[in-house]
Amino acid sequence: MSGDGLSLGELAVELGCELAGDPDARVARVATLGEAGPADLAFLANAAYRRQLATTRAGAVVLAPGDADDCPGACLVHPNPYVAYARAATLLYPPHRAAAGVHPSAVIEPGADVHATASVAAHVFIETGARIGAGVAIGPGCVVGRDAVIDEDTRLVARVTVLHGVRIGRRCLLHPGAVIGADGFGLARDSEGWVKVPQLGGVAIGDDVEVGANTTIDRGALGNTVIGDDVRLDNQIQIAHNVVIGAHTALAAMVGVAGSTRIGANCMIAGQAGIGGHLEICDGVVLMGRAMVTASIRKPGAYGSGVPVEEVAQWRRNVARYRQLDKMHRRLRALEKGTGGGTPPEEEQ
Amino acid sequence: MSGDGLSLGELAVELGCELAGDPDARVARVATLGEAGPADLAFLANAAYRRQLATTRAGAVVLAPGDADDCPGACLVHPNPYVAYARAATLLYPPHRAAAGVHPSAVIEPGADVHATASVAAHVFIETGARIGAGVAIGPGCVVGRDAVIDEDTRLVARVTVLHGVRIGRRCLLHPGAVIGADGFGLARDSEGWVKVPQLGGVAIGDDVEVGANTTIDRGALGNTVIGDDVRLDNQIQIAHNVVIGAHTALAAMVGVAGSTRIGANCMIAGQAGIGGHLEICDGVVLMGRAMVTASIRKPGAYGSGVPVEEVAQWRRNVARYRQLDKMHRRLRALEKGTGGGTPPEEEQ
Amino acid sequence: MSGDGLSLGELAVELGCELAGDPDARVARVATLGEAGPADLAFLANAAYRRQLATTRAGAVVLAPGDADDCPGACLVHPNPYVAYARAATLLYPPHRAAAGVHPSAVIEPGADVHATASVAAHVFIETGARIGAGVAIGPGCVVGRDAVIDEDTRLVARVTVLHGVRIGRRCLLHPGAVIGADGFGLARDSEGWVKVPQLGGVAIGDDVEVGANTTIDRGALGNTVIGDDVRLDNQIQIAHNVVIGAHTALAAMVGVAGSTRIGANCMIAGQAGIGGHLEICDGVVLMGRAMVTASIRKPGAYGSGVPVEEVAQWRRNVARYRQLDKMHRRLRALEKGTGGGTPPEEEQ
Repeated sequence: MSGDGLSLGELAVELGCELAGDPDARVARVATLGEAGPADLAFLANAAYRRQLATTRAGAVVLAPGDADDCPGACLVHPNPYVAYARAATLLYPPHRAAAGVHPSAVIEPGADVHATASVAAHVFIETGARIGAGVAIGPGCVVGRDAVIDEDTRLVARVTVLHGVRIGRRCLLHPGAVIGADGFGLARDSEGWVKVPQLGGVAIGDDVEVGANTTIDRGALGNTVIGDDVRLDNQIQIAHNVVIGAHTALAAMVGVAGSTRIGANCMIAGQAGIGGHLEICDGVVLMGRAMVTASIRKPGAYGSGVPVEEVAQWRRNVARYRQLDKMHRRLRALEKGTGGGTPPEEEQ
Repeated sequence: MSGDGLSLGELAVELGCELAGDPDARVARVATLGEAGPADLAFLANAAYRRQLATTRAGAVVLAPGDADDCPGACLVHPNPYVAYARAATLLYPPHRAAAGVHPSAVIEPGADVHATASVAAHVFIETGARIGAGVAIGPGCVVGRDAVIDEDTRLVARVTVLHGVRIGRRCLLHPGAVIGADGFGLARDSEGWVKVPQLGGVAIGDDVEVGANTTIDRGALGNTVIGDDVRLDNQIQIAHNVVIGAHTALAAMVGVAGSTRIGANCMIAGQAGIGGHLEICDGVVLMGRAMVTASIRKPGAYGSGVPVEEVAQWRRNVARYRQLDKMHRRLRALEKGTGGGTPPEEEQ
Repeated sequence: MSGDGLSLGELAVELGCELAGDPDARVARVATLGEAGPADLAFLANAAYRRQLATTRAGAVVLAPGDADDCPGACLVHPNPYVAYARAATLLYPPHRAAAGVHPSAVIEPGADVHATASVAAHVFIETGARIGAGVAIGPGCVVGRDAVIDEDTRLVARVTVLHGVRIGRRCLLHPGAVIGADGFGLARDSEGWVKVPQLGGVAIGDDVEVGANTTIDRGALGNTVIGDDVRLDNQIQIAHNVVIGAHTALAAMVGVAGSTRIGANCMIAGQAGIGGHLEICDGVVLMGRAMVTASIRKPGAYGSGVPVEEVAQWRRNVARYRQLDKMHRRLRALEKGTGGGTPPEEEQ
């Protein structure tokens, strides 16, 4: 938190908000509408919480123009209140910055280049040829392979593995357990078994990318796996070799993307979706949770698949009928042709 | 193993079993009914294995009252033989306990508080403000962030990451690669791209919780992500920000729970299930493997979704028919109204 | 890369290829048909790229006999060009080998046995009783538990965890974040909550096995989890306790296999598939992506399940109809019996 907080006047200027209320009043923390007190900033960005507005005790509320009249106290009015809230929260809670310098327990091989303003924490290993840029923070237990490049102000939180030759841009944030640049899954089959196909490409990650905990991004077989600027990856995502993801695309947790698939810019992919290999997903595609994609998508829009839960007895009945769908289709055609009356076939019962 | 094992009399007392057999006979190990020898304790808790009972060579068998007459040798009779077996196995194989003390390669920042009876292994990093309770074991390569609290007798096996401010209760067991308290996936969108929403809450884990290998539990956006007492999480589970899980609920591997969802107590959720965000699952819900939950569940019971595999040709046919379901429905209505005879529409074929 | 590359004559001999072209010409790198230049070796193994053959500038192309006539330059002809390419690439890019010896920051407990030709990198921890064979490379940040055995020429890339008593064969390759031998998910329920069932077995991994990043393989409850020779596991796979996987079987990313299931040899399982517990999958089974297996498969062949994405409006309609399948079936029967005309039931609309 920034000292004793910020005045509403300062916040209004910083966030580009219109202020209704005392510009000298101060807020020091953020809280939900329901829990906020007079020293807290709250926000209303989701209609489901609007009923909490009338009774909030928040010192100020960030909200959209249409909600300002219903606010009992001070408010900061912005057409995109969630963005304004995010910026306010960042001002009130500036991210923890590690001090520059190399912890004595870190091992930096000769030939690695660590900028004087970078921070290298305990038990880090940096291999020869790696380049760590200005303002970079490498958290405890991270491994950075030979010739990898990590650009300015990127942060590896802890226990991140960046393998040889990977390039990571500026202002990225990689969470614990992420593995960047492991071998892609390349196998050739001969008569005696599998022959490993050397994975000779790299990974190129743009600027402002976030990579979630335990997410894995494999290196290319030939050429790079490419993650565009401002791509946001949640936890436990798997990105296979030679995948390309366009700028500003966001993937929620547990999504899998198979090899050589290209995903456009500004896509939003919900949790547990799976995208097959060698496909193209155009810009502006939204995939619902658990979506299963087995063909290219060339038209922007929202796509879904999968059937939500039912009580088990009903689920089992519908699964059984699903397995008879082709037969049901034929029975329907027979009825339409006038040949389907009489005794239904025994196996359908 | 505890020396030369335990006598059946000791076991009967410890487990609250009725003993049929020589109380001075000893068992030193556990084994399956099929593989056990005279020094081994076996158990029968699953009817599928009952046929092995008649021929077992086990020194003693833990079983239910109804099976005692069919046992050729000594038996320990308990109404819940699997629980009695689990307790017997724990007596015969007490968990390995690391010796108290801090390994010289561990780095403990000033201001961290490590109890004298705790064990801190090689290459551990503990940040300032963290509190490590009595009898806690922090295995090799773990990271514990600033102001995190780990209560008595909890064990982090190896390479676990616990980030700043996380609280973990007593007697918990966290397996390798688990990440507790990484940032939730909070993003606001403005015209130029994503704005990160600071994740300012924490994670509160109760007592007797088990967290599987490479499972991730994100910190709350505001307020905590909460894991109740005796919750059991298998490997590679993803728990998003502000999820609340009630006591005694168990999740099998690869389950994903999206943000702000509340799961009740005493639920059992099978592998690869996915639960959407902002939902409520009441107490006592059972979800089958791969279940997809997109709406709240307010009635206890078992729920399933998904269609099991078929041979590929049949699968493709049924998928094609599935995609025509809405049309099939209309054709069926037309027949019911007496207007559906004649030539079926071309596109249905 | 091996010096200034290899002559086509050497390659032809090493790979068992027929050479059309100058045996003294040299290639130093590999590249795709489209990007290769005169010093590069390219390959054609997938018909989708055949159109690039006529215009390639590659120094030589590895291809199948039927494609040789269309190659504008030198070619190396092999009946399985992908295998020949994989071997050529391995010759041109021999895997990086760490130097033998133990890094000073590594911690090796007394009673561990590390072969003089093994390489132990920074911040490795090896517990007492572990045996590290000749030519093994233990990368930075790995943990090897007590009494674990790692046989000749196996490589743990970085931050791999191998727990107590696990056995890993020869020439295996384990990628970062893999966890071998964590406790299986064994729980017994009594009236007060869960009782942990001690996981007393181990993990036995054969020779030539590859384990992907952040993949987890649990130890057996009693007896071992077994991974056969030449099994290939991609990233973020979960193998539960007492699973057995036969030789040469390959699993793509994010597959989950529940406890005690046996998978045969020479199976290929695509990404995000899920296989229930206590099942048998025979040799030679192919599972399509996202396949859901809830019963044993006793006949070799390809199996699939799941419905690919549709536009959201259509998806919602078909899901609604799917939930009425059992009713549709009854309406169809009524029509077939001649009792279904008239007014359709209200709830179907």
